[in-house]
This record gives sequence, structure tokens and C-alpha cells, in this order.
Amino acid sequence: MQHLITTSDFTKEEILKIFDDAKIFLDMESSQVLKGKVIVNLFFENSTRTRSAFEMAAKRLGAQVISLDVGTSSTSKGETIFDTVMNINAMGPDAIVIRHSDCNFHRTLVDYVNCPIINAGAGKTAHPTQALLDLFTIREHFNGEVEGKKVAIIGDVKSSRVAGSNKKLLPRFGMEVCFVAPDCFKYETDEFKQYNKISDVIDEVDVVMSLRTQLERHNEVYFQSLNEYAVDYCITKENMQDRDIILLHPGPVNRNVDISDEMLLDPRSKVLEQVRNGVAVRMAVLKKLVLKQ
Amino acid sequence: MQHLITTSDFTKEEILKIFDDAKIFLDMESSQVLKGKVIVNLFFENSTRTRSAFEMAAKRLGAQVISLDVGTSSTSKGETIFDTVMNINAMGPDAIVIRHSDCNFHRTLVDYVNCPIINAGAGKTAHPTQALLDLFTIREHFNGEVEGKKVAIIGDVKSSRVAGSNKKLLPRFGMEVCFVAPDCFKYETDEFKQYNKISDVIDEVDVVMSLRTQLERHNEVYFQSLNEYAVDYCITKENMQDRDIILLHPGPVNRNVDISDEMLLDPRSKVLEQVRNGVAVRMAVLKKLVLKQ
Amino acid sequence: MQHLITTSDFTKEEILKIFDDAKIFLDMESSQVLKGKVIVNLFFENSTRTRSAFEMAAKRLGAQVISLDVGTSSTSKGETIFDTVMNINAMGPDAIVIRHSDCNFHRTLVDYVNCPIINAGAGKTAHPTQALLDLFTIREHFNGEVEGKKVAIIGDVKSSRVAGSNKKLLPRFGMEVCFVAPDCFKYETDEFKQYNKISDVIDEVDVVMSLRTQLERHNEVYFQSLNEYAVDYCITKENMQDRDIILLHPGPVNRNVDISDEMLLDPRSKVLEQVRNGVAVRMAVLKKLVLKQ
Repeated sequence: MQHLITTSDFTKEEILKIFDDAKIFLDMESSQVLKGKVIVNLFFENSTRTRSAFEMAAKRLGAQVISLDVGTSSTSKGETIFDTVMNINAMGPDAIVIRHSDCNFHRTLVDYVNCPIINAGAGKTAHPTQALLDLFTIREHFNGEVEGKKVAIIGDVKSSRVAGSNKKLLPRFGMEVCFVAPDCFKYETDEFKQYNKISDVIDEVDVVMSLRTQLERHNEVYFQSLNEYAVDYCITKENMQDRDIILLHPGPVNRNVDISDEMLLDPRSKVLEQVRNGVAVRMAVLKKLVLKQ
Repeated sequence: MQHLITTSDFTKEEILKIFDDAKIFLDMESSQVLKGKVIVNLFFENSTRTRSAFEMAAKRLGAQVISLDVGTSSTSKGETIFDTVMNINAMGPDAIVIRHSDCNFHRTLVDYVNCPIINAGAGKTAHPTQALLDLFTIREHFNGEVEGKKVAIIGDVKSSRVAGSNKKLLPRFGMEVCFVAPDCFKYETDEFKQYNKISDVIDEVDVVMSLRTQLERHNEVYFQSLNEYAVDYCITKENMQDRDIILLHPGPVNRNVDISDEMLLDPRSKVLEQVRNGVAVRMAVLKKLVLKQ
Repeated sequence: MQHLITTSDFTKEEILKIFDDAKIFLDMESSQVLKGKVIVNLFFENSTRTRSAFEMAAKRLGAQVISLDVGTSSTSKGETIFDTVMNINAMGPDAIVIRHSDCNFHRTLVDYVNCPIINAGAGKTAHPTQALLDLFTIREHFNGEVEGKKVAIIGDVKSSRVAGSNKKLLPRFGMEVCFVAPDCFKYETDEFKQYNKISDVIDEVDVVMSLRTQLERHNEVYFQSLNEYAVDYCITKENMQDRDIILLHPGPVNRNVDISDEMLLDPRSKVLEQVRNGVAVRMAVLKKLVLKQ
């Protein structure tokens, strides 16, 4: 049985097939291909946006959804998270969508479940459906011609599972990924080019991916310097100049910290298009995994 | 595209058509007219009753529902409420039902969304579906002959969005609205007659609408005098005498503060009938707006 | 109209019919027999597992579900729990599934509602669907031959609604129930045999039902002696020896307090099978009560 824990669970061909389906779903009002199926959303971390997007995707396909915010539930009755998943699995869902702060939790489950596990966010490492929708959005913009395109991922890359998934997925499709971040947010690796300033790379890139400054994951040292951070890393009309780029962000956007109000209104900003594409891509992923196609 | 932000968004003819549909829905077990549609409930204020009523209405029509209690979600990640709605909108729902404490929030959204916005409560000013179901309940009781009927709205009128919507809607159908409240709860207006005591008007009215004493919106000054308040404004068999009135209340009822236990059991009390009608009226509103009829 | 408040609401014949249906549902992918129906889950006590199981059961039958965690809702607006249920009832659901800490609450409702009430847990006394799924699991294991089988219910029997329902249901099918518990957890009754130690009865029993140690219902006196408690009452390979028994537990399991890690992996442990059966049994109960068959 196939799962989606990281984007490497899918071949390039499978991903392109998912994108074909997503394109169809974008224009289709609704479908009943998953009628009678029940998808469980199991979120050990709070989420409105990703959970809603999966719920919308499943419901647009005619599936029913059980959404469990497990942060506040039976874990307080002394149950381990592993047992929680095993119990949900025993109830016979057709897929379990899981967000958890532990990077390795999802992979440990696959030997024990009877249905596909879909990773909706794992710690600081992986958020595969986000990377898929990012790639889909980039491909749509460039009419599929993404080979050789350069992507600058900007901000808190070290803590970002969005960066974690994209840095693996985008190069598989011939794209070059680099990072722009202050030293405290940089990866400890030489595998990718890393820059200090947006101005160092803006002339070379085709895609700018701003990340959410993970306010809640940093201590107060960073809070105090948020404005200072924004001076260098907030995406603005000034630092984007008139470059022919597209701007992505996984959301939620911290306005005027991640991206300026003005830049969000700029046609180069694809933030809401990503959200729209995200539902379609997740529909395609659910269809593939639930129907085992 | 049509929205329901205040009752004035509908003509009288449209409202009467909604009531015709609601009547049909009251007797119909279920329908699939909204099959394949997804309605999002976006509640920035806590609510069981209104949210459930909308959820029931949507599901009785075969729609799917995504319910988001947004008080505890991504707003905590630094997202503005406007962005939250824009994101939900980008996911492609067929309608967004919103409750928010800001009176003007709903109207500001209509220029930015691709689907109908339905106001499920806005600050202290408007709660249009409540007023519609109140009017429907009154009309049902009087077999449609409501012209010239007098309605006394009693209690905390100043803070009440139910009063806010009814004082505009009911006069459009020829009804006369007055208020009974202590000075601290009165409107600062001369547009309507306002009385101090129930006994000042009880002999003239056909409908008594008791409001929920909004315990959570007042400071302790009012809490301390709740019993005192009840002496004058609680609806009882004594102050209703044997008058041929009907008694409405938007719920939840504070027993023996808003309405006495005994009066709630009196056949003149239509509180639970309002709840029943509320589902049917909301079904008709959803059908109209989602199907754009 | 029929309700399920305690297992005695069903005759033996009705229960066996439910089990026949449950067996069919176990092998059926999904059904639409409750299409167009809306089930309300009204949980005044927190629950992930039972609520999810009912939600799964309803959705597998094509019904829609409205789940309300009412601990945090309009009860805070001064509404009584009775009024909350009356309001939900007025919305016209096809069944209301209720969990509440008051043992007698469910029974008081039946005279006032227009749809079946299904007890999903009442105080310390009754949890009828749990007992039904336990009996179903036992019957499946013994191919229906349960007459004369002996069941030891072990642990915190006094606080357990699972024990409360099973001690009434299982004897109706010819089974003998006894309890094993420390003095502080024993019933004050002579109706059943009660033992101090597992070793006192293990040689005689066919079914061992371990209960969840209700950590949250006891004061710190018990917390301090949890390890001590586990020494005597935790189900282990040692105290189960090579006995040909099956082990049940209503979940969530406190690992190494209720049951050892090792014993949970033992094929005699039917804990996850119970969960699976629980969905099927609840499907059958919902079908029976909602369709009034």
C-alpha cells in the first residue's frame, strides 16, 4: 500500500499524473469518486488551513471526514499517540491524514496500518502536499517548463518543513534551490547555496518562496528583533524591483514581516492561488491513495 | 452575487419566497438539492446553537459542511481575520457562514469573495437569519396576517443583534416594534417607542420577544442586580396575564431571568418552535444563495 | 420510540439481530442506508474514541453527523443541559448520541425528544454500546457458544460504566461475571463474586476484561500507588500464564498499568478487534433505532 510521508514516496511520473488530475479538479465543481469513503484528519498540532484544505479536498470528492484535534483529547487519558493512531486505524478509515511535531512519527506507522497515511506536516522536516502544491503552482505559471528555473527560499528555513520538502522535490524537476536567511535560520549544510540578503540573489531567480516566520517556535530573542528581521527579509516591492518572478508563501502570512501588504496585492504574488491549487492537488493525492490507483 | 449581511439584502418578495421554501422544508425529511456543495461555517465567536442550526440546515440539503471555530486557530499564528476569510474563499466553498464581533466585518468581505457570505451574527447590530425565523414564526402563528401587529422587544435591547435585525425587518411587513428595557439597556433613539415596564405595554401587544440577558457582555455591576432585573423584565405568567400573545426568545434562555420556568411551558411560548423554524428558514436561505435562485 | 439508554432496552432477540447486522457491516465497505439522515453527537464529557466510533459508524451508513463538544459551549451562556438537548431535538435530528457524567440524565430525556437517544456513556453506571461490542467480540471468538463462560472484570470496577453495563448484559446470555479489584475499587454488593487477586480466578475464567484505571477520577492517593496497583492488577503474560483466555479492554489502555506492553501484542489480546467491532455494532444500533426497525 502506498503512503505519502515524503514527496519521494511518489515517482516523477506519479507526481505528473497527480498534477493532471489536479488540473481537472480545478475546473470541476464536485465529484463523487470517493463517495462512501471516510477520511480521518488526525492533527496533533493545531492547524486551520491545512486541515480545512484536506477536509475541502475530501468533501469535494464526496468522501466523509472525521476531524480530530488530538492535542486536547484522549492523550490526556494516558494513551500513547501510537495507540491513538492504532485505534483510529482499527475503526477502518480509508485514509488517515496526520500532522505531528515528530519528524519520524509518520514513517513508523506504515507497518501497522491498513490504510494510507498522508503526512500533513511532520516536525521541521516534511510537508509533502505543500511542496506538491508549490511545484504545481510553479509549473502552471511556467506552462510546465520548470527545468533550470531558480528558486530562492527566504526566511526561517531551518525550522521550516515547507523548505524541507521543497528542497528535495524541486531539484527532481530540474530546478535549482537556494536559501536566503540570517545565520540563525540557515541550514548547517553545504548542499545548497545560502545567502544573507535578498539582493544577493534577486537578479538570478524565477521564484521567490517566502516562509512563515514561525513566531511560536522561537524564543523571545527573535520576537524582539522581528522588525529588524523584516527590514532584511520581508518581501517588498522595493526588493523585488520589477523582476519577472512569482512569489509563493505557504501561509499564514505574517503581514509586513514575511511579505508587505503592498506586495501581497501585486499580481506576482500567488499566495491565494496556492491555496486554491492546494485543494486540487490534495484531491488528486486522496484519489490516488484511497483508490490505490 | 447575492449575500445575506442584513435583512435588507432581500426584497419582501424574496423573503416571502424563502418562507414558502421553508414551509416545504419543514415537512420534508431531507433533500439533496445541495449535494456536492461545501458550506464553511466560520465562527469567530463561540456558538453552539446557531452553528448547529446552519450545519443541520446544510446537511439536510445534502451539502457537506466544514466548521471552523476560529477563535482558537490560526489567528494565533498572526494571521489577520481578513486573510483567514480570503484563504477559506480560495479553497472554493459554495458559501461562507460567518459570525464575528465586528459589526462591519461581513460587509467589507463581499467585494473580495467568490461565494455568498451569510451573516450568522455581527457584533451588536445584525443577526439576519434570526430575524427571518422570528418573522416566519410570527407569520405562521397569524396565518400570514401580520400587518398592524405590535411587537414588544424586552430586555437588553441595546446589546442585542437580534433586536437590531428585527427592528428593521418587522416594520417592513407592517408590524409596529417597541422596546421595554431599563434605562441602561435602552437605545439612544426616538425612532421607536421605549417603555420602562412590561405592564406599560402588555395590553397592546401581540408578540412579546424576550432577549437573552447577555451576561457575558456586561460587567459585574449588572451581575449583582440580576435578580432585581428579573423582577421587572422576566416574562412570567403573572405579567403576561391571560393575554393572547405569542412569546419569542432567540435562546439560549436564562431561565427565571429572561423567562420563568412556568412561562416556558405555556403554550404561548414558541421558543422551541423558533428553533425548528430556524433550521427550515436557513435551509431556504442556503438554497437561494448557493443555487443563486 | 425506542432508545438505547441501557442494554435492557433491547431484548435478547433484538441484540442477536443487531449482531447479525454488525457481522454484515464488518465485511461491507460502506452503505447508504442512512443517507439523508443527520445524527447529532452531544458529548458533555470529553471523548475521542467513542465519539469517533459513532461518527465513523454513522458516516459508513451514509448519514451526516453534527458533533458537539458541549463542555465548552453554550452551557457557558447560562443554558441548562436539558435546554441544550431540547434545542438540538427541535432542530430535527434523526438520533442524538449523548455522553454525560450524570447517570440518570439520559433516561429523563426520553419523554421529551422526537428521536432516539443513544447513550454513549452515563456517569459510572452505563455504557451500553461498549457492553454490546464486548459481548459481540466474545461471541465471535467462541462462535456464539457463550453460555457458561466465565468473565473476570479486573480493576477499577466501582467507577466503571463499562463494568456497570457488562455485569447486566453478559449474565443475560448465560455468562458468569466476577470482579477482581482492590478493596477500594470493589462494589458494595454480594450479587457477584469479588476477588482480591488475579491468581484467585485465572484458572477458572474464559474472558479477562481489564478496565481503564480512571486516573482522572481518583485523587492523588491512588496516583501515588499506581505502580503498586499495577503489580497486582496489570494484565501480564506472567499472570495470564498459558491460559486459553481472551483479553478485552475498553480503551484507552494505560500501558503497563492496565495491561503490559507484551500482553497487548499477545494474540489473546482483542483490544483492537473490539474497536473494529465497535464501529460495526454501532452501525447496527444506529440502523435499528434511526430506521425504527
